[in-house]
Amino acid sequence: MDQDLYLYESISIQLRRHIEGGSYLPGDRLPSVRHLSRLFNTSVNTIIQCLRQLEHENYIEIRARSGTFVAACPPINTPKASDFELLPVEVSLSDDILHYMEPHHHSDLVHLGIALPDPQLMSMERIMTTLRDITRKQPLEVWDYSHPHGHPRFTLQLARRSLHYPNRFSQDDLIVTNGCMEAIDLALRTVTRPGDTVAVESPTYYGTLLALEVLRRKVLEIPTSPSEGICLKTLEQAFKHGRVNACLVSTNAQNPLGFTMPEANKQKMVELATHYEIPIIENDVWGDTLYAEGAMPAKAYDHAGMVLYCHSFSKSLMPGMRLGWIAPGRFHHRLRELKLVSSITTASTPQLLMARLMESGFYAQHLLALRQQLATQAERIRQAVLEYFPQGTSVMQPSGGCVLWITLPPHMDASGLFDEALQSGIHIFPGQVFSPRQQYMHCLRLNVGSPVNADILQAVRRLGDIARTRESALLSGGLM
Amino acid sequence: MDQDLYLYESISIQLRRHIEGGSYLPGDRLPSVRHLSRLFNTSVNTIIQCLRQLEHENYIEIRARSGTFVAACPPINTPKASDFELLPVEVSLSDDILHYMEPHHHSDLVHLGIALPDPQLMSMERIMTTLRDITRKQPLEVWDYSHPHGHPRFTLQLARRSLHYPNRFSQDDLIVTNGCMEAIDLALRTVTRPGDTVAVESPTYYGTLLALEVLRRKVLEIPTSPSEGICLKTLEQAFKHGRVNACLVSTNAQNPLGFTMPEANKQKMVELATHYEIPIIENDVWGDTLYAEGAMPAKAYDHAGMVLYCHSFSKSLMPGMRLGWIAPGRFHHRLRELKLVSSITTASTPQLLMARLMESGFYAQHLLALRQQLATQAERIRQAVLEYFPQGTSVMQPSGGCVLWITLPPHMDASGLFDEALQSGIHIFPGQVFSPRQQYMHCLRLNVGSPVNADILQAVRRLGDIARTRESALLSGGLM
Repeated sequence: MDQDLYLYESISIQLRRHIEGGSYLPGDRLPSVRHLSRLFNTSVNTIIQCLRQLEHENYIEIRARSGTFVAACPPINTPKASDFELLPVEVSLSDDILHYMEPHHHSDLVHLGIALPDPQLMSMERIMTTLRDITRKQPLEVWDYSHPHGHPRFTLQLARRSLHYPNRFSQDDLIVTNGCMEAIDLALRTVTRPGDTVAVESPTYYGTLLALEVLRRKVLEIPTSPSEGICLKTLEQAFKHGRVNACLVSTNAQNPLGFTMPEANKQKMVELATHYEIPIIENDVWGDTLYAEGAMPAKAYDHAGMVLYCHSFSKSLMPGMRLGWIAPGRFHHRLRELKLVSSITTASTPQLLMARLMESGFYAQHLLALRQQLATQAERIRQAVLEYFPQGTSVMQPSGGCVLWITLPPHMDASGLFDEALQSGIHIFPGQVFSPRQQYMHCLRLNVGSPVNADILQAVRRLGDIARTRESALLSGGLM
Repeated sequence: MDQDLYLYESISIQLRRHIEGGSYLPGDRLPSVRHLSRLFNTSVNTIIQCLRQLEHENYIEIRARSGTFVAACPPINTPKASDFELLPVEVSLSDDILHYMEPHHHSDLVHLGIALPDPQLMSMERIMTTLRDITRKQPLEVWDYSHPHGHPRFTLQLARRSLHYPNRFSQDDLIVTNGCMEAIDLALRTVTRPGDTVAVESPTYYGTLLALEVLRRKVLEIPTSPSEGICLKTLEQAFKHGRVNACLVSTNAQNPLGFTMPEANKQKMVELATHYEIPIIENDVWGDTLYAEGAMPAKAYDHAGMVLYCHSFSKSLMPGMRLGWIAPGRFHHRLRELKLVSSITTASTPQLLMARLMESGFYAQHLLALRQQLATQAERIRQAVLEYFPQGTSVMQPSGGCVLWITLPPHMDASGLFDEALQSGIHIFPGQVFSPRQQYMHCLRLNVGSPVNADILQAVRRLGDIARTRESALLSGGLM
């Protein structure tokens, strides 16, 4: 093998790995040819030759006058049936996750780690006033066990959320839980067993991966594009070949990417689940924070009861009340049993609180303000990241929620950035815990839940400085 | 076989079955010889001959001038190792349990079914005032996620409860849960797997059996005496022969029997668990309602961390807040993982509420009044039962809590009594759901949590009337 061919192969392999490894996600623009030639210390022509090869292999699309983009469904993870069985993996991230969560409880940091809107945006006074009123007017209900399935005033309001769905649910279809996490935990325990495999988006929320690890389920990562959501072609392969026992997704304001799946894709996904009889657990905890109106959850398209829809108000009003709910479709009976012995029933006070805030229309009004505020904050921080971070950094444009997913140049290591940032008093979340195979080493997630002020902008600038310094050190040390 | 021998054998077999089946519990007095001779329609001499035989077989003790009593550990369930493996059973009581629980939500009944002190005894005003104060002074803590293991102000108070134990626990040993049920569920899932066998007292709380059914664990019933608690001889056999993977007990004010295990037996039980390395899950939800001071939980004797101690304030202050906690000993790590993915964390408001009520000494004061009140109520209803129910009825004298365990004459069927009582507007709990083998068909449990008034006394009288009428019908229809 002559020297040029060797170099050309080596660069192609590395680029493929970066794409397969998630450093660049489907739809992401790759660095310019000139930038790549500097990075790999080779000629522009060699880079162009590599890119053409990758285009031929369907890894990328070269668009005239626009640049080079990762294909919507790159060939990784659309495997032949023969090597498919190798892909499910066991998760062992819990030590890392707990390590990266820990700084949340330190009050003297700039909190860009845990994804949570600031209490300033959350109508605290109205919540507290309503709680006091409940203790005065309904002390017996505060005191007593609530009905095991949920307080009827609350579940009535929940059922009304589905009035405009093609497939509605009724009060009796619902079970109230201790937050969205209990809903997901019960759903997983209802439709899967230890050793089973669950398909998830890649990247996905680390809390989901933690649940799968603790419950000893294996994980199959499905490539996920910010424009299309989870890759339905790959998902269908997995369903068809019986490789997964369930699928766990977020279709609205997905954490960490912030995308919303097109309605047609949600519908198609539910059809696949129905056809292949694979349950879908839908985590819609961020659904109420979508910046624009009009999106429905996949559950709306679920005529066969295959979707276990999980939701809570932790991200849109108040995490401390630990109030969530689930519409488990055809899996209602088993899930109700598990809930009964998990905690008998959910506390009544938070249910009465939410019932009142929904009945009065206050919650809907609150959401209007919250969504606008989050959209503004996300855009301001996104601009700051683009300004301060090294060239080659890309930032996802979220459709809801309060996180930004940032992809650093491929050779960067976000866990090192986490350490240095923490020393500078800034808490961030590195990308590696959003994948059981720790694919997103070069990515990080920023919480943009707080109103943007000088401290926060300063912190983003500082993060950018750290990233630049680390990049220079890497480049001067040689990339390969 | 001549006629007399046949009769004699037949009566002995029936008496043995009643004892083995739990119609008469260890320590219970059997009906008088004269009463038995009427019941079995035979001579006093035949009955005496039967009783001597049963005494010889260690089923009963005949005490001069006192009567005939079921032996502390009758031979049933102290099986030879060879037939031991037949005893673990799968539970399938959930339909029955839900059926018998249902009337609790009807407001027009006399509630003698679900075990719960009346809100009148529960310092409602103080609870509601404190809740309002918390929303004023600590709104941020009400709003936010609490620390995953629990609020430190609360866990500090919990740890202090163990200061006088031979083996104390610290704050860091504790995990706060959504009520005692979540603690038990997490404990079961931590130390056992589906298909495993758990030893329980016989009779035991139906909620425990429901959890074991839903989690697909098998059950081994261990004979349990009101004076000694769970039979340690049998338990040791089960441990020794590896027949059980865990043991789930209540050592204080056990539901439904109301007994408290002697301290020496608690200590011995923990020693056995430690020696044979079988975890003990201790459900101490009634511990704070003991009428007398001085008893400690088995956990107090646990130097090796083999006891997973579960507790809550649902029965001693307020069920609606769904607040419990667990001291899981050496099983802390796995249990913490399961808790994290079950519900991330427990709501902070109830923790702040209990912390304040404990810090101020209010809770301790409240317990003094509650215990006295419950003792008085239990004794008044017990006397009423003895007065109104048919001859041959026995009533356990509880040492705490708010239930009475009533054993009707052996041929009676308490589920029929449940139906008739409900038609008369009275909710009771029949004995059969306190055993996976439905052994206690002739027993029932009454809630004595409410201050005794004319309605309640009238209801007990009505229950007695129904029982008498049913007994007459049975006797006139012939017993055998």
